[in-house]
Amino acid sequence: MVKKSHRPEIPRKTIYRLSTYLRCLARLKEKNMQTVSSEALAKVAGVKPTQLRKDLAYFGTFGTRGLGYNVAELSYRIADELGTSRLQPVILVGVGNLGLALLSYRGFEREGFEIVAAFDAEPNRPRDKKISVTIFGMEDLPAFVRQHGVRMAILTVPAEVAQEVANALVATGIAGILNFSPSVLSVPEDVMVNSVNVAIELENLSYFIQE
Amino acid sequence: MVKKSHRPEIPRKTIYRLSTYLRCLARLKEKNMQTVSSEALAKVAGVKPTQLRKDLAYFGTFGTRGLGYNVAELSYRIADELGTSRLQPVILVGVGNLGLALLSYRGFEREGFEIVAAFDAEPNRPRDKKISVTIFGMEDLPAFVRQHGVRMAILTVPAEVAQEVANALVATGIAGILNFSPSVLSVPEDVMVNSVNVAIELENLSYFIQE
Repeated sequence: MVKKSHRPEIPRKTIYRLSTYLRCLARLKEKNMQTVSSEALAKVAGVKPTQLRKDLAYFGTFGTRGLGYNVAELSYRIADELGTSRLQPVILVGVGNLGLALLSYRGFEREGFEIVAAFDAEPNRPRDKKISVTIFGMEDLPAFVRQHGVRMAILTVPAEVAQEVANALVATGIAGILNFSPSVLSVPEDVMVNSVNVAIELENLSYFIQE
Repeated sequence: MVKKSHRPEIPRKTIYRLSTYLRCLARLKEKNMQTVSSEALAKVAGVKPTQLRKDLAYFGTFGTRGLGYNVAELSYRIADELGTSRLQPVILVGVGNLGLALLSYRGFEREGFEIVAAFDAEPNRPRDKKISVTIFGMEDLPAFVRQHGVRMAILTVPAEVAQEVANALVATGIAGILNFSPSVLSVPEDVMVNSVNVAIELENLSYFIQE
């Protein structure tokens, strides 16, 4: 993994929790709260206060004893740490049912991501839904990624072609892939893949709820 | 968490890997392979052979030295452990864009799950897509869950109503919720929630690919 050399190794689970804290802080901001205690923030985030303080300690402390955290400042610091304090361009590859549903979702920009373009092997195929993002053919991928400095891609193609498309993405310089296909992807070490597999999540639930 | 009393505590990450092994074994079956070595299976699953052997040791060993694992037998044993050796009924609540996309996906049955019904506050609202699953109103939820012995639900409702709908699901006796809403849900201890949050996965990627 490519990382800023000065940053400590923050565990992956901590990074996920930072995302949760950021969402909780956004809700507090909407309610015009300016400060929050670690106890209160931990409670809405569903973690122990000691866990919260330990997580925030990875990149310095901001709480003032007795006053708690400044909501706006802590939000900014977490977003900056996650790399989402500025809007990041993301592309989506594979405009089937799931791809269309994700393209229709309007919540990403609020979270720091903009899906700037979509790509599909059949860009002009009739689709069930009108979307505002342009769908390009796969041949346009390399030039687009380079011109727009895109580093992240959402992969919503069928399993059979997932590896091939992942290879194409890696070749263009994409550094992070959010993989929705039910395939295990092989990528070079400096490329990061996060996978979302609905069937595997159901299976995992299934194990834990057995009677 | 409610568990069979005789089973050892298998770590959650191991359960996820069992799902991966199951998918790799399915591919081997398609290729008519009858046995597989732990080295070969570990390779396609993207784990170390020692990890694979350790994971399978949680519920007994089946490999024969020099012959490897019987593909069909190991598949069955893993599916049985995960509780997916028989088709499990699942309901989906919230038929918006993402709900529709999941209802259109035909791969779940192959993986051991059948979405038997969908529920929505506005079951008769016009939708972009024809689907074969019936959409019921929320008032039909309790009777349906009881009559069909459903224990798992996919939650694809907007964030604002997610907790309220989760409460309704818990009240009907649902034991596992796959939550796609960007909310942290509060549920009783004996109910299991797995969450899929696309923005959080993007944020996590974003952190790791920073230059």
